[in-house]
Amino acid sequence: MISPKEYRIEEFPQSAVVACQGVKGAYSQTAANVLFESPDVMYMRTFEGVCMAVDAGMCQYGILPIENSNSGSITDVYDLTRKYNFYIVRSVKISIQHMLLANGKLALGDITEIYTHSQAAKQCSALIERMPDAKLHLVENTAKAAQMVAESGRTDIAAIASENCVELYGLTVIEENIQNNANNYTRFICISKKCEVYGSPERISLMLTVDHKSGALFEVIKQFADLDLNLIKLESRPLPDTDFEFMFYFDVQAHIADEKVHELLTRLNLCTKYLAFLGNYDEIDCPSTTLNRQ
Amino acid sequence: MISPKEYRIEEFPQSAVVACQGVKGAYSQTAANVLFESPDVMYMRTFEGVCMAVDAGMCQYGILPIENSNSGSITDVYDLTRKYNFYIVRSVKISIQHMLLANGKLALGDITEIYTHSQAAKQCSALIERMPDAKLHLVENTAKAAQMVAESGRTDIAAIASENCVELYGLTVIEENIQNNANNYTRFICISKKCEVYGSPERISLMLTVDHKSGALFEVIKQFADLDLNLIKLESRPLPDTDFEFMFYFDVQAHIADEKVHELLTRLNLCTKYLAFLGNYDEIDCPSTTLNRQ
Repeated sequence: MISPKEYRIEEFPQSAVVACQGVKGAYSQTAANVLFESPDVMYMRTFEGVCMAVDAGMCQYGILPIENSNSGSITDVYDLTRKYNFYIVRSVKISIQHMLLANGKLALGDITEIYTHSQAAKQCSALIERMPDAKLHLVENTAKAAQMVAESGRTDIAAIASENCVELYGLTVIEENIQNNANNYTRFICISKKCEVYGSPERISLMLTVDHKSGALFEVIKQFADLDLNLIKLESRPLPDTDFEFMFYFDVQAHIADEKVHELLTRLNLCTKYLAFLGNYDEIDCPSTTLNRQ
Repeated sequence: MISPKEYRIEEFPQSAVVACQGVKGAYSQTAANVLFESPDVMYMRTFEGVCMAVDAGMCQYGILPIENSNSGSITDVYDLTRKYNFYIVRSVKISIQHMLLANGKLALGDITEIYTHSQAAKQCSALIERMPDAKLHLVENTAKAAQMVAESGRTDIAAIASENCVELYGLTVIEENIQNNANNYTRFICISKKCEVYGSPERISLMLTVDHKSGALFEVIKQFADLDLNLIKLESRPLPDTDFEFMFYFDVQAHIADEKVHELLTRLNLCTKYLAFLGNYDEIDCPSTTLNRQ
């Protein structure tokens, strides 16, 4: 466990090598472009690839989606915190606006196949239902779907992807803002192998396990309540190969230099089986107008 | 909101019409067989179909999976609590042991296609990786996958499904207990349109929303802490079309007749925007030896 004395406060770099999942035009790249003035983005096939790149020192930072306002927490990313040691150093909320893209103009009824990511398919289910004869192919990333459609050269298939992919892959917009809910946000985290705290951030993430006995979780929650520390997010993920034992994730509104945080960590050390500090970071709320920078 | 005076306590029926998702041999049917002496099971294609059947009075009860010890909460089922009014009246934990089934003996290398449910595919990913050339087809239920393989008559395809499907569909076991983790449990809930409380159950489920302002969730959690009521599960699901507002689910260890519960509900009414009582029920821990009854 990190002690509050060990963290470093410095300027967040304007340029860095940053790992993102997917290919050019991925929403993770948009997040990297908001966080860094000039990121040098390397693309990995999977979320785990991003963690491995950070872990191996192949890059300074990695970008991962952590939750969506419609589909909830990205549980695969939560589960990766158990396997890799990384810290959260920044967070950014991006407005996700999907588009239906193809090689040239095309009527909905003429589309025989749709390529996209499973989350995007869920977020655009209403439009997909209007194309009952089109076969849905799920691929690992929306930008990858756009790339596949472009490279196929076929004029009877379409991709659901970001606006960034239009110019990047020379695609035509068939329909825009096609997600079921106009408000569709994804929060991305920026991870690092080192614990880095920038400015006076207000969000602390902790992960912990408790003894498998009645009242153990409650004892933890009581510590936050007793210290009047505001819990802003709770998440639990099952520990595989156990009988409903969990890794718990707590996001609390506080700064690591706060005396109360020191007291909280001391108390949690006494009532948890495992406790890890995942980071103290701020959250950037990105206006959608700045999103289309490549 | 139900008041603690309005619930009914009676004997849980031995027979009833019960809606399950899937087809004969589904794990939900196993749960129905543990809960009822002689259930009259009707099969629905989707989880929502189960809720609709209960809502329309087509059956007295419905069975839904709520969480798995490896993959976590079944978020689609949580989200259905917002759309349909139902109460949880029982809960049962079932050991899930998947099998690889086919039409007659078959070597792994000869399998060209595998049919199963997405959760089962995830739970058996290690075995699936040993068959890199086999194409994976995800269908809505493991028993449905077994039925499809049986009806196809093909000897080059396999299903991942329960042991119950072996006899039901006349299939041959290629490999047994194929899930990555030996400990693989799913907790099922039994839902009803009426609030029914049987015996002296120890689990109360509540769902609620809070004002979208700092400290609102914390205020709720503080009430449990102040009343010394043991929280045993927390879950949050995003409310679609909002900017990260949530429906929160709290499971607390208590009986509805307890004075403290009355006090809790009174206090929660004051600090929540929406509050619903989902049920007070017991949890049956099913030994795996009793599972194979049809």
